[in-house]
Amino acid sequence: MISAEEALQTILKVAQRLPPVSVPLHDALGKVLAEDIRAPDPLPPYPASVKDGYAVIASDGPGEYPVITESRAGNDGLGVTLTPGTAAYVTTGGPIPDGADAVVQVEDTRKVKDPSGERVKILVQTRKGVDIRPVGCDIEKDAVVLKRGEKIGVSEIGLLATVGVMMVKVYPMPMIAVLSTGDELVEPTTGGLNRGEIRDSNRAMLLAAAIQQQCKILDLGIARDDKEELERVLDRAFSAGIHILLTSGGVSMGDRDFVKPLLENRGTVHFNKVCIKPGKPLTFAEIQSKPAGNIAPGKILAFGLPGNPVSCLVCFHLFVVPAIRLLAGCANPQLLRVQACLHQPIKADPVRPEYHRAIIRWEANDGSGNPGFVAESTGHQMSSRLLSMKSANALLELPATGSVLPAGTSVSAIIISDLTSTSSSEISLSSGLTSSAQRNTCRETIAGE
Amino acid sequence: MISAEEALQTILKVAQRLPPVSVPLHDALGKVLAEDIRAPDPLPPYPASVKDGYAVIASDGPGEYPVITESRAGNDGLGVTLTPGTAAYVTTGGPIPDGADAVVQVEDTRKVKDPSGERVKILVQTRKGVDIRPVGCDIEKDAVVLKRGEKIGVSEIGLLATVGVMMVKVYPMPMIAVLSTGDELVEPTTGGLNRGEIRDSNRAMLLAAAIQQQCKILDLGIARDDKEELERVLDRAFSAGIHILLTSGGVSMGDRDFVKPLLENRGTVHFNKVCIKPGKPLTFAEIQSKPAGNIAPGKILAFGLPGNPVSCLVCFHLFVVPAIRLLAGCANPQLLRVQACLHQPIKADPVRPEYHRAIIRWEANDGSGNPGFVAESTGHQMSSRLLSMKSANALLELPATGSVLPAGTSVSAIIISDLTSTSSSEISLSSGLTSSAQRNTCRETIAGE
Ligand code: NWS
Ligand code: NWS
Repeated sequence: MISAEEALQTILKVAQRLPPVSVPLHDALGKVLAEDIRAPDPLPPYPASVKDGYAVIASDGPGEYPVITESRAGNDGLGVTLTPGTAAYVTTGGPIPDGADAVVQVEDTRKVKDPSGERVKILVQTRKGVDIRPVGCDIEKDAVVLKRGEKIGVSEIGLLATVGVMMVKVYPMPMIAVLSTGDELVEPTTGGLNRGEIRDSNRAMLLAAAIQQQCKILDLGIARDDKEELERVLDRAFSAGIHILLTSGGVSMGDRDFVKPLLENRGTVHFNKVCIKPGKPLTFAEIQSKPAGNIAPGKILAFGLPGNPVSCLVCFHLFVVPAIRLLAGCANPQLLRVQACLHQPIKADPVRPEYHRAIIRWEANDGSGNPGFVAESTGHQMSSRLLSMKSANALLELPATGSVLPAGTSVSAIIISDLTSTSSSEISLSSGLTSSAQRNTCRETIAGE
Repeated sequence: MISAEEALQTILKVAQRLPPVSVPLHDALGKVLAEDIRAPDPLPPYPASVKDGYAVIASDGPGEYPVITESRAGNDGLGVTLTPGTAAYVTTGGPIPDGADAVVQVEDTRKVKDPSGERVKILVQTRKGVDIRPVGCDIEKDAVVLKRGEKIGVSEIGLLATVGVMMVKVYPMPMIAVLSTGDELVEPTTGGLNRGEIRDSNRAMLLAAAIQQQCKILDLGIARDDKEELERVLDRAFSAGIHILLTSGGVSMGDRDFVKPLLENRGTVHFNKVCIKPGKPLTFAEIQSKPAGNIAPGKILAFGLPGNPVSCLVCFHLFVVPAIRLLAGCANPQLLRVQACLHQPIKADPVRPEYHRAIIRWEANDGSGNPGFVAESTGHQMSSRLLSMKSANALLELPATGSVLPAGTSVSAIIISDLTSTSSSEISLSSGLTSSAQRNTCRETIAGE
């Protein structure tokens, strides 16, 4: 059994960033830039007013002056030159007329009624350059405003629009195919369950996880525990232009666990067991897809995820998310780790490092007297109990000591969901949903999954 | 001028969560649940094996037993009852045959070659209940698995599929209309700029921001600084079923700033200035939309955002995001705040509390000797300089002291982007893109925007 770290390194070594594509600006959000972006013109392109007010010659000083032009935008004030003893009305962002060297905001002026023409009283002494943005003050002509490898967020979209870039070279998001395997599985639409049936939850969950990571998806449905059926479905997927295959189930010790042998047969299996809890029977393989139609051949990363819903989703976060990020051009595909203080004592597994699901939130006092993250367990951690993932925004990395970590212990927490939508009062612990008596039953009778 | 806190309270008082709608499961991701979800059946629905192995009667102990059935799924082993001295093959998740009370994993057994029928050697002593998930162990029948008000993430999608819910009652995401105003604005597609023209960056940016918040969008284009044009465009928008209107520009002191008067005319303006930097001229109004076609009348929250791109985006984060979250049913619409230590000294504004754009990252030592967030400024903070928002994931809340906060000071940081994609090595400071000489020019000549 290899370690989580080794497993991740293997995956990241096999994965290759996808070839860049050009997309319209509105499709670029969230993607990684594949080119440097230069400004074709300076911003502002002309000396611009920072205020609504009057463009003046600073050395003129306070006094009453004729308003010889109004400058808002476009050709306003074009050809007019301010000479000593004159002023021009300007609006915020409007071009400063030639000759002017400062702006006095409208609050520091008074309009003068004069039938012979507009006049203004400047009430304050200003200095040369005040409230004027010189050409290129925000962005110099030819400056690199965005660099290859940077992620395109909202402000980056604004910057691209600023410099007039409407088609952007980015790394595309991978296409992910998702297959559930197992004779016991029925569609989630199934109302009454027959004996031995459970609803397929992994597929909807993994598809949602792929969508949350902004990937394109291909739903491969449910495959029975049947070698031929599995081959048929997967071979079709391999030539559909996918970059990542996710199967769930059929990778442990059962006599009909056909996923591993099939991946071995079609490509190279790099590992099939990782020393982690949950997620031990994770299988990772590399498949070389054959060219088909107009789809170029390429490398497919195949993850045989464990069938237990929690194991499945934990493996997705630990291993598939970094792979997606690498394919999508991220410079650093690693997950974000912070430290968090345990809200309650937690017992670590004696053999495998455990990824304990928790809700972390920022507190003014994390227990140590300082502000910091506090981690609350989601309750019973059995890998079939998907409720242990409910509301969880972090995986606590507990080393395999077998001992109890007391409340207040600072542990490493891998962030698995957007913290911006976490705030204290929203948190309702899912563990409250299972009675403690019931939890004890499970805990006592299941000897180390 | 009201404070940021007052402004936000006013907005959150006016805003009302939208009426719930039913959506298919695959559209529920990221939305807030508007109903409690109960499990119609227990999980597992039958006593299920935790391992691939043999179902046994624990008291039989180690020894060689005939394998009387195989139980994988469905009707496997139905009608067969294990009697003392027999065993049954079971796979992970398969139903435990009647009579059996424990499972021995396949690793602790040996297949016995016997021409008269399958036999297995059980190598270990087990206990009653071991490696069996009793009925309802993960989810009890009729248990509430998800509660109204909870956000639907990836694991919640899995839980909904588990309990067979394919149509979900959720709070919908608001529809947001975005309009840019200003005579100087041209489409971002414009190649060569004429005198007095700049490209409209706010609209693409605000539309992207709305999309990032999962809202539906309506692009209203650019309106000239013309009263009639503005009225025409906005009145059309008010009857298009929108929930939020965002305009940018035209709210300060210019003689053609028509946005405020129009909002006053069509509804109630609650405030038009907030004591913050940047973002001072923010206007907030409430408009009652008229019924049109099949669109029900309703309340529209109208935000007249300042034209400066940074002010515009900062106001979006501070005020529009909480409003979106409230409309979308979030129990707590407040933004996430953490503490971060300043990487470098920062001077606070003497008059208005400032929202200093920064990149925060988690460090093993935040400067105090403890792990924590470190905040690095994005450089020159002029409100026209969109580069100060580039890569920024936090707004540092600096009180209006006018003094220099030394490096190492712990400040409140509002998280404005998904931290999960921030990792140390990805960070390249945008301030490096502007030469310091150039920055000095701007800094010295602009007297308090
Ligand atoms: N002898 C032996 N037996 C072993 C192990 C071992 O070491 N030795 N290891 C463990 C561990 S150890 Mo763990 O991650 O560290 O907790 S997973 C794990 C497990 C992985 O088994 P796998 O072959 O991947 O999956 P299977 O198909 O058997 O299903 C697994 C469960 O998940 C359910 N399930 C499947 N698919 C779906 C779906 N789409 N939706 C909803 N539920 C689904 C399915 O009903 C079943 O209850 O086998 C165990 N058995
Ligand atoms: N006398 C007086 N004058 C004042 C103030 C005051 O107190 N007194 N306050 C300040 C402050 S103070 Mo600040 O937030 O605290 O930093 S904003 C602010 C500002 C708000 O002005 P507004 O009327 O909202 O916007 P306008 O249309 O004038 O544009 C503003 C800028 O932004 C650009 N711009 C517009 N739209 C777009 C777009 N779509 N894409 C790209 N750029 C765009 C546009 O070119 C221009 O450079 O006026 C100032 N003037």
